[in-house]
Amino acid sequence: MAVYTQVSTEAMSDFLRRYDVGTLLSAKGIAEGVENSNYLVETTGGRFILTLYEKRVDAADLPFFCALTDHLASKGLNIPRMLSDRRGEQLQTLAGRPACLIEFLQGVSVTHPTPTQAFAAGGALGDMHRALADFRLGRPNSLDIAGWRALAERCGADLDRISPGLRARVMGELEWLEANWPRHLAMSVIHADLFPDNVLMLGDEVSGVIDFYFACTDIRAWDVAVTHSAWCFENDGTGYHADLGRSLIAGYDRRFGLSTEERLAFPILARGSCLRFLLTRAWDWLNTPADALVTRKDPLAFQRRLDFYAEVDPETLLASA
Amino acid sequence: MAVYTQVSTEAMSDFLRRYDVGTLLSAKGIAEGVENSNYLVETTGGRFILTLYEKRVDAADLPFFCALTDHLASKGLNIPRMLSDRRGEQLQTLAGRPACLIEFLQGVSVTHPTPTQAFAAGGALGDMHRALADFRLGRPNSLDIAGWRALAERCGADLDRISPGLRARVMGELEWLEANWPRHLAMSVIHADLFPDNVLMLGDEVSGVIDFYFACTDIRAWDVAVTHSAWCFENDGTGYHADLGRSLIAGYDRRFGLSTEERLAFPILARGSCLRFLLTRAWDWLNTPADALVTRKDPLAFQRRLDFYAEVDPETLLASA
Repeated sequence: MAVYTQVSTEAMSDFLRRYDVGTLLSAKGIAEGVENSNYLVETTGGRFILTLYEKRVDAADLPFFCALTDHLASKGLNIPRMLSDRRGEQLQTLAGRPACLIEFLQGVSVTHPTPTQAFAAGGALGDMHRALADFRLGRPNSLDIAGWRALAERCGADLDRISPGLRARVMGELEWLEANWPRHLAMSVIHADLFPDNVLMLGDEVSGVIDFYFACTDIRAWDVAVTHSAWCFENDGTGYHADLGRSLIAGYDRRFGLSTEERLAFPILARGSCLRFLLTRAWDWLNTPADALVTRKDPLAFQRRLDFYAEVDPETLLASA
Repeated sequence: MAVYTQVSTEAMSDFLRRYDVGTLLSAKGIAEGVENSNYLVETTGGRFILTLYEKRVDAADLPFFCALTDHLASKGLNIPRMLSDRRGEQLQTLAGRPACLIEFLQGVSVTHPTPTQAFAAGGALGDMHRALADFRLGRPNSLDIAGWRALAERCGADLDRISPGLRARVMGELEWLEANWPRHLAMSVIHADLFPDNVLMLGDEVSGVIDFYFACTDIRAWDVAVTHSAWCFENDGTGYHADLGRSLIAGYDRRFGLSTEERLAFPILARGSCLRFLLTRAWDWLNTPADALVTRKDPLAFQRRLDFYAEVDPETLLASA
């Protein structure tokens, strides 16, 4: 949520000459995305996002993200493509960082979605899963169930500094998930981080899906569960909104759909989503100075969601969707 | 250089309904300006900067800044106006902060100006001073020579933590300036912070002057000296570029001009500019945690400029301009 790498106007102008996009008219560093540096750039040829990849994105993964967004855009989905320069290269280096020039899409991210907007987001996720059926690349999920254990062990006793008893709760949940994880469900490349932040909307329509930097190969229905846990609660994890949950799943079903097995496993998948975000937030919480300008997201907001999914009647969660 | 106050899409949409600017299409928090929160907002009616004023800007000063930018824009200068809402109000409240919706201007800020660009910047400053001859409002400069003493005393012995001997250098310079400050020169409302950051350029033309939040009443030629000290050195304060200095002053003279008295006093005014920025940077340096994401600007970059102006032959500094 900050600009980590400053790019001078002169360096940006030089960079843009690699592309057929005209000359620079405006460039503003924007607060967006997870630990990348982003500029909203305007040229005589249009508007673009210039992204410089910082430490969280492995440059070796960029060809995968590039192929993925190309694949989705080529199927007509509203996914911003990485532009090719005059030599056909999409992946660049700028200011010592891997960098890409990316299409700009209009749209805003809602913070309190309506059921109609949740329906549209579920539909966009369904469209993505449909479009990915013939995508042949893959990327391991470093934040899969094995990754959660590694992260939980790295956090260790410090979890109790966030909230007394959190470590026992996390380790207990982890053991339960390891015993019950539905490893037989269909796999796919998934977005894996479809929070409202990453969905651009114009009114009630999805105008863009962005930030594919957690995309990976994992259980496809887990992506739906991640989205469900991200869209259907208050920000602090209280107050499940059943109408949003129903609308999200109905939107997904309209475009793609959950199998009976996936529906039965859904609360387990959602618990896994909660543990994943609880753990990454806990790690960031423990490793971000309290006075840094980066906003620390509350790990407990996902403990509260976890409590909900652990207690909800599996039959009723998706019953009327 | 960060977004301090988050405004949700819903709150921003509501806010924009006060204006006749259409509906929200995009909003990006941008890293710009001094400790305000800024969003680049696009609506069906155009593009705008939404500014929320944080602690550094006193809300009581906003009517002055508003009248000042209106005055300059009404004279045809490329100065972004604060928009009026449907009721004619320019000053608003949003998310508990004073807020304004401001015209967006294209243009980029150069980091290594060419002489042609320095000439254009000097011209823009001259246009501003000409346009302000009949501006009747005023605002005391809290960072005038009396303010420097107050700030130097608040920094106190801590100045030597930045660089051994800095306190003695600052106090000696302050006494010299207090004895030699040219208090008889013409006063005006001035920009007082015309760094390259605050000048938008398209090629070699100035497309906008922004960030009037230090504007105040003070010695008019001091504004030229501030601009000279900001534009004509390397960022670290080394390497005075005589060609930039000559071009800047020539551009200013073309549109407005320095009197003989102002030219003679110019090195003293420039020393005052260096002390002002040295002190505010020193204060920020001493009061910003080293690990904060706000970039701390090096106070010593202005000590080096100060050394230059203290040693330069006053006859030659502006001789060929």
